[in-house]
Amino acid sequence: MYCLVKFAPLFLAVAVSNGWLFGDFVGKQKVLDEISLWPLPQKFQSSAVAFKLSPTRFQIVQAKQSSAGPSCSILENAFRRYFEYIFGDLKKPEKSRKKVYDSDLVELQVWVTSADPECDGFPSLQTDESYELSVDEPSAVLKAANVWGALRGLETFSQLVYEDDYGVNNINKTDISDFPRFAHRGILLDSYRHFLPLKVILANLEAMAMNKFNVFHWHIVDDHSFPYMSRTFPELSQKGAYHPFTHVYTPSDVKMVIEFARMRGIRVIPEFDTPGHTESWGTGIKDLLTPCYSGSSPSGTFGTVNPILNSSYDFMTQFFKEISTVFPDAYIHLGGDEVDFSCWESNPDIQKFMVQQGFGTDYSKLESFYIQRLLDIVAATKKGYMVWQEVFDNGVKLKDDTVVEVWMENKMEEELQNVTGAGFTTILSAPWYLDYISYGQDWQHYYKVEPLNFPGTDAQKKLVIGGEACLWGEYVDATNLTPRLWPRASAVAERLWSDKSVTDVDNAYNRLVQHRCRMVKRGIPAEPLFVGHCRQEYKGL
Amino acid sequence: MYCLVKFAPLFLAVAVSNGWLFGDFVGKQKVLDEISLWPLPQKFQSSAVAFKLSPTRFQIVQAKQSSAGPSCSILENAFRRYFEYIFGDLKKPEKSRKKVYDSDLVELQVWVTSADPECDGFPSLQTDESYELSVDEPSAVLKAANVWGALRGLETFSQLVYEDDYGVNNINKTDISDFPRFAHRGILLDSYRHFLPLKVILANLEAMAMNKFNVFHWHIVDDHSFPYMSRTFPELSQKGAYHPFTHVYTPSDVKMVIEFARMRGIRVIPEFDTPGHTESWGTGIKDLLTPCYSGSSPSGTFGTVNPILNSSYDFMTQFFKEISTVFPDAYIHLGGDEVDFSCWESNPDIQKFMVQQGFGTDYSKLESFYIQRLLDIVAATKKGYMVWQEVFDNGVKLKDDTVVEVWMENKMEEELQNVTGAGFTTILSAPWYLDYISYGQDWQHYYKVEPLNFPGTDAQKKLVIGGEACLWGEYVDATNLTPRLWPRASAVAERLWSDKSVTDVDNAYNRLVQHRCRMVKRGIPAEPLFVGHCRQEYKGL
Repeated sequence: MYCLVKFAPLFLAVAVSNGWLFGDFVGKQKVLDEISLWPLPQKFQSSAVAFKLSPTRFQIVQAKQSSAGPSCSILENAFRRYFEYIFGDLKKPEKSRKKVYDSDLVELQVWVTSADPECDGFPSLQTDESYELSVDEPSAVLKAANVWGALRGLETFSQLVYEDDYGVNNINKTDISDFPRFAHRGILLDSYRHFLPLKVILANLEAMAMNKFNVFHWHIVDDHSFPYMSRTFPELSQKGAYHPFTHVYTPSDVKMVIEFARMRGIRVIPEFDTPGHTESWGTGIKDLLTPCYSGSSPSGTFGTVNPILNSSYDFMTQFFKEISTVFPDAYIHLGGDEVDFSCWESNPDIQKFMVQQGFGTDYSKLESFYIQRLLDIVAATKKGYMVWQEVFDNGVKLKDDTVVEVWMENKMEEELQNVTGAGFTTILSAPWYLDYISYGQDWQHYYKVEPLNFPGTDAQKKLVIGGEACLWGEYVDATNLTPRLWPRASAVAERLWSDKSVTDVDNAYNRLVQHRCRMVKRGIPAEPLFVGHCRQEYKGL
Repeated sequence: MYCLVKFAPLFLAVAVSNGWLFGDFVGKQKVLDEISLWPLPQKFQSSAVAFKLSPTRFQIVQAKQSSAGPSCSILENAFRRYFEYIFGDLKKPEKSRKKVYDSDLVELQVWVTSADPECDGFPSLQTDESYELSVDEPSAVLKAANVWGALRGLETFSQLVYEDDYGVNNINKTDISDFPRFAHRGILLDSYRHFLPLKVILANLEAMAMNKFNVFHWHIVDDHSFPYMSRTFPELSQKGAYHPFTHVYTPSDVKMVIEFARMRGIRVIPEFDTPGHTESWGTGIKDLLTPCYSGSSPSGTFGTVNPILNSSYDFMTQFFKEISTVFPDAYIHLGGDEVDFSCWESNPDIQKFMVQQGFGTDYSKLESFYIQRLLDIVAATKKGYMVWQEVFDNGVKLKDDTVVEVWMENKMEEELQNVTGAGFTTILSAPWYLDYISYGQDWQHYYKVEPLNFPGTDAQKKLVIGGEACLWGEYVDATNLTPRLWPRASAVAERLWSDKSVTDVDNAYNRLVQHRCRMVKRGIPAEPLFVGHCRQEYKGL
């Protein structure tokens, strides 16, 4: 076995100029064209020696030494999924024709090394997603500490397989050692501006796994609608959803999303954004929102959550108790962005409260008062929380493990410097608001972002744990969300997974063209980067 | 029967401020919300009197006086299509329960008045698409000179139907007299930058009919690929398509597109653009393209069609002879845009020819020389032709019935003035290049265009026969074309069909929101205009 080579930046540049593969691929341009790893692994070495994969003989199996056995449903599911991605169907192996030929790769052994393979667990921020993959005859071996790393390695293995001139699946002798650069690699979808049917969410979770994303940030409710069906407060969706039957996520739907995501190593972090962005909450819960005044009398409209009533906090306590049990992830996103003070300012009871508390006319102090109590409520459920940057900016006291999400592109570097300077972990979404569309290849802008390009110490840089591509829902629903998200979000996927030195746009273009065709082949309507074609065009409409 | 009222601009403004319906609809906002005609008819009068439509009793039938009988497949097909749009399925009528209730609308009688209903014909530029629709008990009557007007009226009838609180289909007492403002209302799709599978083209023809578009401008081949499978020159697609089997339109495919379009009153105008935009032609046809030179020797690359060889014209003669028989429409689009002279300039044989012809160094004279001969070739097939504006700009002699397509947004008004001033019919596509996307509701820009807003006499204005919404294919294929085209193209549809005075954007927004949900309900993944929901969201992915 030959040793793995870590890509040094300079070396990568050379490798990239040769078509990114490192090895003896002279004259093998066709193979280079066929194999298109995305995101690019951290360490990679391949050779021109190719093995064939027969759909009747090739198997993906649990290695004998593996701590995960045949009852490990995450892996057993993934084996079947990747077999189908590779061979296109699940034709029954012909047991009688087990003769193995010289050039055959007969199996991929998946070897989970930790005592606890985490088969029944959930991925977390601390999850080790690294894996090592060695493809050599007669067996390939995929080694990972746990099932989560194994899932990432299975995706990579499937991406290494290419068809030769006879349509036979081939894979080259390869060694890969891989791990993500950032631990939090998310996609934000909003399901309140437009209701997203379950199948749209599931399809996008599939696409996320193909791109090694590991967080689904589900901005599930907001001003316009409340599609989350709460067991404790069923009136929230009964009155706040676009339709209480056809436009809601039932407890069973939510479970399905979480399990579908878990099977792909994806965390589901729900966002319940308060005290602003809550118009739809108010129709179901009496007195939750602040009555706005026009002069000395109520105007009939309502503002953000009423922060001066104990009933508001009682509600939040019960509500987040439910949320903390429904969603297994250690984090809940609590929002806290864009709080509009005008309604609070108009309300005489709020004005009185401001005086009592000595807040003067600084309504951000009232906002902090609310948030502080909310954070204590959520902390009592043993959950960590994520918040949008305004919560930090307003000086709210935060738990040490709080994740602050930086979303404002204006003064982004300064904000990263401040948040990390204060010792908080941070994720970046500011440069990746994919709802903003423009003519041409905008994926390149997303690709060129360097998340750590801000003034700060090494310790500060380490606090940036990742980023999110956000597709807010003003202009997307089931009709156009998936092609608008992919492969534009793939650019963010590689930025967050691959080494910092992987920045060659031309090389990325060539790989991404193939990667998007691979997604199309797997049933995801990922839109084209530019002029061209896929061997298998999209079969849907 | 009460008389029809022509919308005067002022009157319309009043009507629009009341929610666009003219009639006694006070307090009937719900009904206003449900009925959303798009494009708005020319003359329209409705009443609050509503009739019910029973799926087991209601029928669409040929009127006894109609010149079209039960063998008129266009209408028989359309009856079934619109019945399904209205009722969602084709449940067998229960003959035993024919009891008619007072408030029932039992049938829509379709009455074609001309001696020749044109059941087996094709729509043309001269086609009369006007119709009159009267909805009253017990029967509604749709009257049109021919099947084409009847198709437009059937679409309008189906748009008048709305569901009441019980889910029962209702329709109000209504009188409509309608006709298009412009005769040529087209959609351009290109199938060469990305191959568009047949089902994508057919789905978009369906959507076109829902919007009363009547021309499919099929930019079928171009530089990047040649998917049109020619019987005379099979090598064109054999060598020029992305793939000779999976990425071509066979003669049978083309026939199907034409017939599917005919059934919906849509003309299919193919574009075979020369002498530029022909790179893909060159791989199949030896010596068709000009060899480019680098200094004194051929560079190995090829330019536009070689205009100095008789073989080029022999090829075009045979090729367009085929095209003229395959495509029944009276017009072929011959392109003629963006001719790059650099290759011609480099070629010594071309240089010699320029001297012989006395063209000096004015290569636009050579271009005109080519186009002139091509036009004569096509004219000999008895076809009319459309060309892009450069052909006119370069002073090529054109047949009187030539249609000049104005596509450059820069100096658009001046060009319209010049083309119509020279007495040529014109269609406008310059403001409607829908491939250019931007954030937000760009449909409003398309909607606000007034095609006749250029300096010119009434006679000149009459020469503008319509327009086209163009979705060039750099960034669209089967994965994203349909939601990107609809409902953005719907804005163009109303501009080209409805009265000039129909310009209220807020009113259009309200109707278009409903119209796009109607398209979604009918299976077209038309994207959302903005935040909101449809009763029935898109069922595909």
